[in-house]
Amino acid sequence: MKVLVTGAAGYIGSHTCISLHEAGFDFVVFDNLCNSSQESLSRVEKIIGKKIEFVKGDIRDKKALDEVFSKYEIDSVIHFAGLKAVGESVTNPLEYYDNNINGTLVLLEVMKKHNCKKIVFSSSATVYGDPHTTPIKENFPVGATTNPYGRTKYFIEEILRDVYISDNDFKIVLLRYFNPVGAHESGTIGEDPNGIPNNLMPFIAQTAVGKREFLSVFGGDYETHDGTGVRDYIHVVDLAAGHVKALEKINSINEVLTVNLGTGNGYSVLDMIKAFENTSGKKVAYKIVDRRAGDIAKCFADPSYAKETLDWEATKGIEQMCSDTWNWQSNNPNGYKS
Amino acid sequence: MKVLVTGAAGYIGSHTCISLHEAGFDFVVFDNLCNSSQESLSRVEKIIGKKIEFVKGDIRDKKALDEVFSKYEIDSVIHFAGLKAVGESVTNPLEYYDNNINGTLVLLEVMKKHNCKKIVFSSSATVYGDPHTTPIKENFPVGATTNPYGRTKYFIEEILRDVYISDNDFKIVLLRYFNPVGAHESGTIGEDPNGIPNNLMPFIAQTAVGKREFLSVFGGDYETHDGTGVRDYIHVVDLAAGHVKALEKINSINEVLTVNLGTGNGYSVLDMIKAFENTSGKKVAYKIVDRRAGDIAKCFADPSYAKETLDWEATKGIEQMCSDTWNWQSNNPNGYKS
Repeated sequence: MKVLVTGAAGYIGSHTCISLHEAGFDFVVFDNLCNSSQESLSRVEKIIGKKIEFVKGDIRDKKALDEVFSKYEIDSVIHFAGLKAVGESVTNPLEYYDNNINGTLVLLEVMKKHNCKKIVFSSSATVYGDPHTTPIKENFPVGATTNPYGRTKYFIEEILRDVYISDNDFKIVLLRYFNPVGAHESGTIGEDPNGIPNNLMPFIAQTAVGKREFLSVFGGDYETHDGTGVRDYIHVVDLAAGHVKALEKINSINEVLTVNLGTGNGYSVLDMIKAFENTSGKKVAYKIVDRRAGDIAKCFADPSYAKETLDWEATKGIEQMCSDTWNWQSNNPNGYKS
Repeated sequence: MKVLVTGAAGYIGSHTCISLHEAGFDFVVFDNLCNSSQESLSRVEKIIGKKIEFVKGDIRDKKALDEVFSKYEIDSVIHFAGLKAVGESVTNPLEYYDNNINGTLVLLEVMKKHNCKKIVFSSSATVYGDPHTTPIKENFPVGATTNPYGRTKYFIEEILRDVYISDNDFKIVLLRYFNPVGAHESGTIGEDPNGIPNNLMPFIAQTAVGKREFLSVFGGDYETHDGTGVRDYIHVVDLAAGHVKALEKINSINEVLTVNLGTGNGYSVLDMIKAFENTSGKKVAYKIVDRRAGDIAKCFADPSYAKETLDWEATKGIEQMCSDTWNWQSNNPNGYKS
């Protein structure tokens, strides 16, 4: 019995492979590498001391997925595969809807065909849109998303709920990630965005390592303690552990389980810069520029439901997020291409 | 320059073909006939006295669509193709999402490739969910849909809005239909549902014609004038005219134009039964049974925005809806199979 991990070569996928191995799960990985590098899987192999079964393929390719399910006895799926750049999703919405929505539909169809009915899905706090208050609980309204990327996450959540209604044998966990940062303690795997990073932490790290001249901070006039946007940064290794917990609990759930994965702590952009400077000993130059369309002031989780249902909570603080990011970035200034 | 009509063999599509012809539009029709009969198109040909260019194909088949766009000079699309049975969508959500969402994505991709950027989309009042008040205006909240069919309509609306944001050259009209009924005055085309009808009017008509023993009225305790659900029934020929108006106005729009197509009049189930009995001279036996999950008490349009933007309004009243339905049903007791 194996776990199929789609999008396993990506940032969160690669870290989750390590956690799965450590928890004793056998897995097969499936990735089209459109936005990731097979090198990440090679490095995971070194960390876990074991060869990974890797199938290169696209989740929209029914035949390829069908072959994986025919070849391996797949018991459950952790579904990371999807495009994830907010700005790009605004420019190319059809590509995002096709990859994320259509890809998920094909995956679900093949799962049904092979009677595999357990899935853990990579959702996002973006489904909450601009929350009326913080911390954010799982029962807050969803759907008022601000970009196509976010809408793909919301739509897939709804599709999965409909699948459950149509067939109560499905066991579905929706994990709503807050802001993943950090890297494996080895410093050999981490976040390796293509081109200009969309997310704060890789931008900070690339600025600290000298790849970028300065960091643009989008908005200094939000209603937060220092005017910059507040987010719930969560260490990717904690996040990976959440997936393992979800798999361990999945047989006992009797509803679509929807869980925030966050720390419950909100840090501003300036907080993160300062923490990163302290940890790395490097100065991070920044400029406060105009707000970015679609950004919100504050977003952080109420993580209590994750504790209650998955017996999971974040264990790694801001210092470790920064030091692990710095360890990865300084050892791999060009990511997997170095 | 032609209009591509997807799903043209269906109930609303076939009537729209007649209106397009009468208004001087040239068109090609594309339908997989999964839920409709080519006979409807043959009958449209008799009515308009002209051969219809028909391509049998599925909108999810990129190659087939691409060939249509290569062969004909398509200027705009009226996009009816999609599955539409609420109950079936609850049972087979993946099929609905694949046909409706993925089908629309493929269509849009092929349209972009061929630089065709005008589309009129068959949306539905179902996107409003349970409205907080009636009549329903276009700016009412949407998204709280009660079944997968409705969600596909809502999701496609959102996808089309994102397409417009990514490329302002697109001209997009979303027509939110209320409850289409009636038939062409010739009595040769009309609504021909497979199996047990989902909608009230064909059920009434089949009961009157003796195909069904009695009509089940779902709920007699709603907060309406007689306890049964109130809807905005609109004659399909009026609806078809709305599509022609949309095409005539489409070049001048500078936003995604979202318009209710309804009469503004709400009739209850019992009102409709009575009107049908009066018109047909037949008794319609009915039983009031439990409410049906997902049904709402009242739904009718504020049609003023359609008048303002499309210069369109419904012209046919409840008597004509009933008499045209009866004319079609009594002449074709088994629909196109007779």
